[in-house]
Amino acid sequence: MIMSRIEAPRDEDTGNLVDRLLTGLPAGSVLSDPDVTASYATDMASFCPAGAPAVVVLPRTVEEVQHVLRVATELRVPVVPQGARTGLSGAANATDGCVVLSLVRMDRILEIDPVDRIAVVEPGVVNATLSRAVAAHGLAYPPDPSSWETCTIGGNIGTASGGLCCVKYGVTAEYVLGLDVVLADGRLMSTGRRTAKGVAGYDLTRLFVGSEGSLGVVVRAVLALKPEPPRQLVLAAEFPSARAACDAVCAIMAGGHVPSLLELMDRTTVRAVNALTGMGLPETTEALLLAAFDTHDPAADLAAVGALCEAAGATEVVPADDLAESELLLQARRAALPALEAVKGTTMIDDVCVPRSRLGDLIEGIERIAGKHRLTIGVCAHAGDGNTHPTVCFDASDPDESRRARASFDEIMALGLELGGTITGEHGVGVLKKEWLAREIGPVGLELQRQIKQVFDPLGILNPGKLF
Amino acid sequence: MIMSRIEAPRDEDTGNLVDRLLTGLPAGSVLSDPDVTASYATDMASFCPAGAPAVVVLPRTVEEVQHVLRVATELRVPVVPQGARTGLSGAANATDGCVVLSLVRMDRILEIDPVDRIAVVEPGVVNATLSRAVAAHGLAYPPDPSSWETCTIGGNIGTASGGLCCVKYGVTAEYVLGLDVVLADGRLMSTGRRTAKGVAGYDLTRLFVGSEGSLGVVVRAVLALKPEPPRQLVLAAEFPSARAACDAVCAIMAGGHVPSLLELMDRTTVRAVNALTGMGLPETTEALLLAAFDTHDPAADLAAVGALCEAAGATEVVPADDLAESELLLQARRAALPALEAVKGTTMIDDVCVPRSRLGDLIEGIERIAGKHRLTIGVCAHAGDGNTHPTVCFDASDPDESRRARASFDEIMALGLELGGTITGEHGVGVLKKEWLAREIGPVGLELQRQIKQVFDPLGILNPGKLF
Repeated sequence: MIMSRIEAPRDEDTGNLVDRLLTGLPAGSVLSDPDVTASYATDMASFCPAGAPAVVVLPRTVEEVQHVLRVATELRVPVVPQGARTGLSGAANATDGCVVLSLVRMDRILEIDPVDRIAVVEPGVVNATLSRAVAAHGLAYPPDPSSWETCTIGGNIGTASGGLCCVKYGVTAEYVLGLDVVLADGRLMSTGRRTAKGVAGYDLTRLFVGSEGSLGVVVRAVLALKPEPPRQLVLAAEFPSARAACDAVCAIMAGGHVPSLLELMDRTTVRAVNALTGMGLPETTEALLLAAFDTHDPAADLAAVGALCEAAGATEVVPADDLAESELLLQARRAALPALEAVKGTTMIDDVCVPRSRLGDLIEGIERIAGKHRLTIGVCAHAGDGNTHPTVCFDASDPDESRRARASFDEIMALGLELGGTITGEHGVGVLKKEWLAREIGPVGLELQRQIKQVFDPLGILNPGKLF
Repeated sequence: MIMSRIEAPRDEDTGNLVDRLLTGLPAGSVLSDPDVTASYATDMASFCPAGAPAVVVLPRTVEEVQHVLRVATELRVPVVPQGARTGLSGAANATDGCVVLSLVRMDRILEIDPVDRIAVVEPGVVNATLSRAVAAHGLAYPPDPSSWETCTIGGNIGTASGGLCCVKYGVTAEYVLGLDVVLADGRLMSTGRRTAKGVAGYDLTRLFVGSEGSLGVVVRAVLALKPEPPRQLVLAAEFPSARAACDAVCAIMAGGHVPSLLELMDRTTVRAVNALTGMGLPETTEALLLAAFDTHDPAADLAAVGALCEAAGATEVVPADDLAESELLLQARRAALPALEAVKGTTMIDDVCVPRSRLGDLIEGIERIAGKHRLTIGVCAHAGDGNTHPTVCFDASDPDESRRARASFDEIMALGLELGGTITGEHGVGVLKKEWLAREIGPVGLELQRQIKQVFDPLGILNPGKLF
């Protein structure tokens, strides 16, 4: 319904659009060579349609962003905000004739305050850059998506991204205190606060987090920081079945433990990691569980958790002796997605999250679905959060296998909902799952969400065709 | 503007309203005796106008709440949702001719799950009841407003309430995962999730938290729980000035410490507590700081923090020897508001929160304002959060003193905003601060907030006259 208001501009329109943009942006910030703009068409999701941008703009200031939105409003041209395009749902994919609004040049860290424990940043700051900068002050910015070395804070906010540390430290949303946002019509609005607490009015800050650029463009964020924790020590446990590993996860959480990481890799994933990296992980295991603690006595915590793993049937429990060994185990986990990608050339990465008590049911169900469709599906999971990334490995040049990949992907989401879960724990809806959003939130919720979109973006120019 | 659509019903209207309500509610759940309904007119805020309810309803089921909203929509009658009416901003105050919708009889704890670390509750569950119930499972529901022995979870959600533990454990909003909400027209909607993570669509859950019953009526909540921490050990430090105590707060937070409580009481408050309780706190101190840790070695943490207090000028640092002594110190802090109320019969409790680095400036400014208006203003503060409760003690029968009390209250909020803070850290806007909301969030933010209200409540029947 929003899409219907937008028509793909004709060529003379594009010329006019570029001319109007250049009245408020330096020439080097407006790219209109089709070969160049085409390279901004997609993020990292598979199976998501993308259009050809009319123009890519790379503003450096809030005023320049306001100018872009004013021109887009005037000319009724869609605007697709982008960070580093590491997203996995197509939320940053271009639409035909759009302005791609890349925020990567707004990459300044404006403030780090150890007393107030906040950082103030522009949206193009890379996650790892911020993490290292605050570490120099003894502080941590915990959210750590797998793409943390390249993804931007603006993208993290737009997609409400998660990471490995969430089981202890929570997700991006919990670290966003306040925002400056440029609205669809170019007006600038501040939301939230720079204080530890604050409840003045509706929480618009949180509404923007995860809104995938559909409500406004974040141009500045006030982020909460934590004191830097001690380095974590990791334990690896081998299980004869995924179910046994999930039983261990339940026992660990029911036992009141607070691991800083609790990750699961199934046999397919372990073998893929070995094939890619030659790491020599145990190939006979059905499931490898990694648990970590960054407490005052991680060895004691690992011993307690190791005993719970053994009680759940672990055949081998190996606590890392030191930080170097721990880091190696984490590298194995971080290699999971690239390793699975190498299996058959293409992957579809899902993001289903269930109550952790249902994790075993979900993983067994995924095994059934893989068997039924004769597919290789590797599962790695933020097990402590019940958040799985079932990854379908397929040959994109084989139409039948591609069709089966897509079918299995849908069946896994349906199973997730059936188990009381969500279609997306941390990757977002974007283009990939928009048919599924209605199924999760229901018609009343969907209607209200559309009306909220209408309030912020009455012309429907902000990232149209995403989410709904 | 929303108010203008509502007319106070005439007497025959009230008869009709009661009859319509009785078609879907048992007789004992509909109270229309004016003496009884009048007792539901206000929460605990001072200086907030309240009207006379036409009727009070006390539903026990979701269906009954839906019936009430359908009748209210049909008859265009305002509905004022209420919990235990312990709020401090007038957000639960009745308007003339309204239906007071008291949720206190919906008080069942539906589920406590130690693996998923969630509780599912109805809105009328008392905070302390839930805390004790989850403690039996080794779990904690941290948010602990001062009124925790009587306030309800529904009220906590409506006002986004805080408490003493927030400096380490955060506020109510951070514990609300999902909600069932009855909308203004009686439709039932579910938001959010029961999983640890989830980012499907806009975060409507968070929009309801702190919305003071103006967007919908919460009838069920999925709450996150934490493992129960060890009991906390408390230290008391005496300072020769509030500024020195605030310097200590800054040093503690900059030093990377994570206290489970960090509270400040000024001399006025300390004396008031002694007068009320005979506790024998040190009356010569200008500021008393309480710090607590619930870590594995709280004595070591208290020693480190004690040293920082001494470096900031503390004249006396007394760590509690045991849990009993710690509990006594906490009782002193909890007695602060009743003690200040006893000083002159009436209090106006403010709730200004500033970046903690500006806490000293705020408290010195409050002292100046008290002097200028010849008033007694006691300050107790969740110092670790920069959240102060300056409490104006006055004689309500003295019109001039009342006027000066109100003037000082406004000046304190203006100072808070000037220092980069917010008019409300945890008590909400309600009636008390609605003129101030626009000043904090600005015209663009206010316009969007009003439009969001319009989306959820197009007839303006939900708690009209609050927030805006």
